[in-house]
Amino acid sequence: MADEFSRIADYFAPLAGAEGLGLLDDAAVFTTPAGRELVLTVDQMLEGVHFLTGDAPDLIARKLLRRNLSDLAAMAAVPVGYLLTTALPPGIGEDWLEVFAQGLRQDQDEYGVRLFGGDSSSAQTHISLSATLIGHVAPGAALRRNGARAGDLIWVTGTIGDAALGLRARRGELADATGFLTRRSLLPSPRVGLGLSGIVSAAIDVSDGLLQDIRHICKTSGVAARIEESLVPTSAEAAAFGREMLEARLTDGDDYELILAVPPENAAALRHACGSLQVTEIGVFLDGEPDVEVIGIDGAPIVFTKQGWRHF
Amino acid sequence: MADEFSRIADYFAPLAGAEGLGLLDDAAVFTTPAGRELVLTVDQMLEGVHFLTGDAPDLIARKLLRRNLSDLAAMAAVPVGYLLTTALPPGIGEDWLEVFAQGLRQDQDEYGVRLFGGDSSSAQTHISLSATLIGHVAPGAALRRNGARAGDLIWVTGTIGDAALGLRARRGELADATGFLTRRSLLPSPRVGLGLSGIVSAAIDVSDGLLQDIRHICKTSGVAARIEESLVPTSAEAAAFGREMLEARLTDGDDYELILAVPPENAAALRHACGSLQVTEIGVFLDGEPDVEVIGIDGAPIVFTKQGWRHF
Repeated sequence: MADEFSRIADYFAPLAGAEGLGLLDDAAVFTTPAGRELVLTVDQMLEGVHFLTGDAPDLIARKLLRRNLSDLAAMAAVPVGYLLTTALPPGIGEDWLEVFAQGLRQDQDEYGVRLFGGDSSSAQTHISLSATLIGHVAPGAALRRNGARAGDLIWVTGTIGDAALGLRARRGELADATGFLTRRSLLPSPRVGLGLSGIVSAAIDVSDGLLQDIRHICKTSGVAARIEESLVPTSAEAAAFGREMLEARLTDGDDYELILAVPPENAAALRHACGSLQVTEIGVFLDGEPDVEVIGIDGAPIVFTKQGWRHF
Repeated sequence: MADEFSRIADYFAPLAGAEGLGLLDDAAVFTTPAGRELVLTVDQMLEGVHFLTGDAPDLIARKLLRRNLSDLAAMAAVPVGYLLTTALPPGIGEDWLEVFAQGLRQDQDEYGVRLFGGDSSSAQTHISLSATLIGHVAPGAALRRNGARAGDLIWVTGTIGDAALGLRARRGELADATGFLTRRSLLPSPRVGLGLSGIVSAAIDVSDGLLQDIRHICKTSGVAARIEESLVPTSAEAAAFGREMLEARLTDGDDYELILAVPPENAAALRHACGSLQVTEIGVFLDGEPDVEVIGIDGAPIVFTKQGWRHF
């Protein structure tokens, strides 16, 4: 394995924007676009926690960026760049790094971001990665979690629960003949660039699980929520596993879809903003304790044993 | 152990600035001060790589911030905030986190930075940490590594080599009766706020080792360097171990002092900018191949077996 300076020169410097100063300096220098506020977020991906040993390095790289891009999407921010940390154990060689860098390149091109800088280290046993994403937004236009009001409708983008079942497929626990669920688990589609400012009153991305993430809005906004099982958008591939997988679909997370609080009069504007992207009304925010009630297909509330993903 | 949401609420939310939105949102929102450029850097600290298992958590937290603050200092940037990632294995409890957060608080107050956001995860076996530091600088005033010219003198702040011997003391390999060397290893002093823009032509902080870091300037600036062993500022505690430790002192790194390329006519301005901080001329940049020659006390060049710290 080449040392860190060779790794940076060979694999990461070609990914750097002008802000990265060739990855040859102590830090990056970035000029914030005039009249814009910065939006900053960081997420980790750790071997054995966020991805499986042996997962394809390009997909790991792309999911690392996409999880963070999803956080920017939930703030309605325009992504521009990122800082990357890599800590690689002795078993990880040039071949891994080359494919990892290819994945970064692919999603840099896809989402219009460039590498600003980073830190490259050795690790003892497990791969550990993080990305700090930098975006910008018009002053005051960042979408917050705390803006939901009683009466706002709950909308979600895309379909919910595919990643939960995809992870099970990757572990060999269920069949995924088409590979659709597996792809949704390995490579989420962050919903950047929808232009939701002024249309939605609160937003969050689904990382911890639909119910948990709605609950995050409830807590910060001081509202209750009620959704209907029958309205939650579900792919045909996920629906095929039936209600047995309902709890997994609603609580496992990793979907990276957006949950939106939308005043009823903005429904048409929302649909227009989302264009061809599926967006579905699944419930309503209400006055009350900050919790989520799920009404089942029989009209009775469902009690789940698990609330959603959390790190202990 | 409480789950991640309790950890964030109990230990990290009290450290957050307004930009952090209470650590209750998807990302931080930061308004760049008018007419300033942003400076961004990230560094990791991994158990068993950058710190020893059992090191005091408050010192780990402070060194994590200080290593990054040193990168900002090397760019002449004013630090304002940071994003933090923590990945903690099952054995790490509330007591560890409480002291870790106290360390963050202490250096937030010391250096005038606040927490903007972060990511809290579980880990399998080892603690892994990172901090992304955000600072700002007047347009064009960031100190680069590539500005050194033949004829510029090489100056360094503080003393060099204490951390190298301090690490050996912490491993029980040598005696450190006063604890000075150990403290220098555990808690570096980043040289922020010196106001070096316009005085120095290039700067870097000593993280990889004095010789390696001078070589980084040589490579990016296209110059050679020559320093004199007798001029390298050495604490009495480090000097007591004699020339036997010379290579360790010059190549092990972790000093977080600044190496500065200074046009001869700016020496007085440099001394004035550094105030009571020790600053020492140790050599000169020259035309030639990008490498560093060390002239020993006998007047002959010294050949070292090790170039400096690097991660493989």
